[in-house]
Amino acid sequence: MKQAIAARTDIGMGTGKLAAQVAHASLKAYENAGPDAQREWKAGGQKKVVLKVKSENDLFELAEQARREGLPHAVIRDAGHTQLDPGTVTALAVGPARDNLVDRVTGDLSLF
Amino acid sequence: MKQAIAARTDIGMGTGKLAAQVAHASLKAYENAGPDAQREWKAGGQKKVVLKVKSENDLFELAEQARREGLPHAVIRDAGHTQLDPGTVTALAVGPARDNLVDRVTGDLSLF
Repeated sequence: MKQAIAARTDIGMGTGKLAAQVAHASLKAYENAGPDAQREWKAGGQKKVVLKVKSENDLFELAEQARREGLPHAVIRDAGHTQLDPGTVTALAVGPARDNLVDRVTGDLSLF
Repeated sequence: MKQAIAARTDIGMGTGKLAAQVAHASLKAYENAGPDAQREWKAGGQKKVVLKVKSENDLFELAEQARREGLPHAVIRDAGHTQLDPGTVTALAVGPARDNLVDRVTGDLSLF
């Protein structure tokens, strides 16, 4: 079981901003998962990988794939109080789900 | 309502590593919070701030303060599969709780 979180590389987020967006995405996708997936993932140490996605367009395509695969996922838009314009899409989390299912969606992205 | 997550600056975590540790801490402290705090925080957009802490020692002192204040919190140790030695303490999350209570613990740290 794992969760993959893809953060955009094309909007110049600072380290702390990026970490906060990844955490938002992680929690929101986690809450969209069923209780069995939640439990299994936590029992295995809640494995997370943070990946790079290069554009809003790519991010939405991955979100659409996650939807088609029936995987828990969440797209995050920034409130825009700092650094970014309000509503900027920043991150996508996919899972927790089985590794091979998550990889179907995010397997081509590189590690952050 | 907010949650503050302090990540260590003295162990050379890369951006993706740091984001994953912050997300672990965030989720774990969230699960240690009561249902009212969880609900209220999410209704307000799950505000998160990511802060710098300069040593393991400082991190443990803040965790101890959070404990004394009765605030939900979580200390994260890395499994050490990559980059860090197994068991390295990486991050502390405090809250969700009222802003002024969180600030009692983490108010002196600077933004990441």
